[in-house]
Amino acid sequence: MSLLVVGSVAFDAVETPFGKREKMLGGSASHFSISASFFTDVRVVAVVGGDFSREEEQVFERHNVNLSDLERIADGKSFFWRGRYDYDLNTAHTLDTQLNVFADFQPKLSEEAKRSRLVFLGNIQPDLQRGVRDQVAGAELIALDTMNMWIEVTRDSLLETIKGVHVMIINDAEARQLADEPNLIRAARKIMSQGPRALVVKRGEYGAALFTPETYFAIPAYPLESVFDPTGAGDTFAGGFMGYLASQEKLDEAAMRRAMIFGSVMASFNVEEFGTERVQRLTYEEINERFRAFKQMTNFEAIPFERAVRATK
Amino acid sequence: MSLLVVGSVAFDAVETPFGKREKMLGGSASHFSISASFFTDVRVVAVVGGDFSREEEQVFERHNVNLSDLERIADGKSFFWRGRYDYDLNTAHTLDTQLNVFADFQPKLSEEAKRSRLVFLGNIQPDLQRGVRDQVAGAELIALDTMNMWIEVTRDSLLETIKGVHVMIINDAEARQLADEPNLIRAARKIMSQGPRALVVKRGEYGAALFTPETYFAIPAYPLESVFDPTGAGDTFAGGFMGYLASQEKLDEAAMRRAMIFGSVMASFNVEEFGTERVQRLTYEEINERFRAFKQMTNFEAIPFERAVRATK
Repeated sequence: MSLLVVGSVAFDAVETPFGKREKMLGGSASHFSISASFFTDVRVVAVVGGDFSREEEQVFERHNVNLSDLERIADGKSFFWRGRYDYDLNTAHTLDTQLNVFADFQPKLSEEAKRSRLVFLGNIQPDLQRGVRDQVAGAELIALDTMNMWIEVTRDSLLETIKGVHVMIINDAEARQLADEPNLIRAARKIMSQGPRALVVKRGEYGAALFTPETYFAIPAYPLESVFDPTGAGDTFAGGFMGYLASQEKLDEAAMRRAMIFGSVMASFNVEEFGTERVQRLTYEEINERFRAFKQMTNFEAIPFERAVRATK
Repeated sequence: MSLLVVGSVAFDAVETPFGKREKMLGGSASHFSISASFFTDVRVVAVVGGDFSREEEQVFERHNVNLSDLERIADGKSFFWRGRYDYDLNTAHTLDTQLNVFADFQPKLSEEAKRSRLVFLGNIQPDLQRGVRDQVAGAELIALDTMNMWIEVTRDSLLETIKGVHVMIINDAEARQLADEPNLIRAARKIMSQGPRALVVKRGEYGAALFTPETYFAIPAYPLESVFDPTGAGDTFAGGFMGYLASQEKLDEAAMRRAMIFGSVMASFNVEEFGTERVQRLTYEEINERFRAFKQMTNFEAIPFERAVRATK
């Protein structure tokens, strides 16, 4: 198995100005794995309750997502989140969070899972992330996501956890908050000095940036005239990013840069419909088309300035 | 003369968390023309008072900026602005604005000025911009900047003015405000339907975007670890953008894209020190170095997805 994700498989209820869903498949591991499945084989470590039915199972099966490390608690209920977005779709308003079976989640990895080449530690409590990290010590690349709540409430545990990860994938505000530094470039340096050798910063409609100690790479977002439901966009980005890397033999800067594009492409589809609905029906041709669009919308001729001026004076 | 700018030549008093200046050269036409002077010949249409001394004049002279259309009112005072920035350097707090001789400014263009190939209508009252626009009807490219105040107070006049300009150069929030549309892609379409055939959107630390009805181009900002004084960054961007275009024979999409990079390069230098201080001492090699850095930080290999996956499966 090339890629492992630990995170939540959940049910979401979402309301936006454009419509609503009362119960749909959600959670970080769901968004991540369905997105990654277009690029590689992926295995999910998570816990669900008896309400996780054959219907949801089939969604993963159709994408060849391996569920043998999915823990099922028949008399429990799956993690549930209810949220609402107003016309400013940048901010999710949480109306209800029921941890349910997730409250006592202790990720257990099969021997096969422990041998994963790449691992994504989805946004869960940093102690749990560290528990998984320590079981996959031989992985070539371990990446981690987190959120404002963990940065506030469990900062020390989080700092301990990121010591042992290679890549951190977080959003703009989280990077500034974690580093306690308003300038993003300085915040990135500070975070990389704590462990990660690369930092991926998601900036929503402004795109994404990849920092390493020696290099900087930044891309715009795919230009969308309407955003329908941003839930899961970050995990879908991470799924495209890690899934593409898992398809590559060399995890070098060039591969990371292409992975940034594929992550952005997948996230751009995710927000076009509710939950995982759009990504579920994606075709390779649609993915390629947006990848090519990224090249088109960022490309310029590198004609040095003196030459250009001399030529016309 | 290839490039004309109409705007303000002023004195600024600026205080930031890092220092202060009580009286320094400022104003949109100053920032614009000094920036543009690295790429082309530029002429300024503005008005100053008797306090505009030989010292300020020499700054323009050193950069071969043509001041023969600069109106001087010996017994008046130049436009004066006093502002303060807090640690969040994104927002200027205006403490004092004295229009002085600018209050009765009626731009008068010499015959030579009227024959300019490119014209930049800096951020002044839209009626005045229109007055200039109508005197340069033969120009190949007319660009316009504006600000939130004019969009609020003189919306109808502004809409009348942009009917006759080719390129609009404004910031993110202004584009959304002018179009009354929160989605930037839709806002851009709406603005282009009112006249301009291209729209340049400045996004501060997030970079800049170029919209045409058929294409989209977006670049990040040059990554700076410290921003010292953002005053004039927008006009310095416009100066690099228009100045580079003026150096080119063909004003096509490829030239516009390179112009976006040069605009961003010039703005990145502007914010490193007070007012025009950093840009005044720029060398061509420094400009080129950042141009090359832009290529480096946006470049990725366009390897189609199927090929990459097939190669490793």
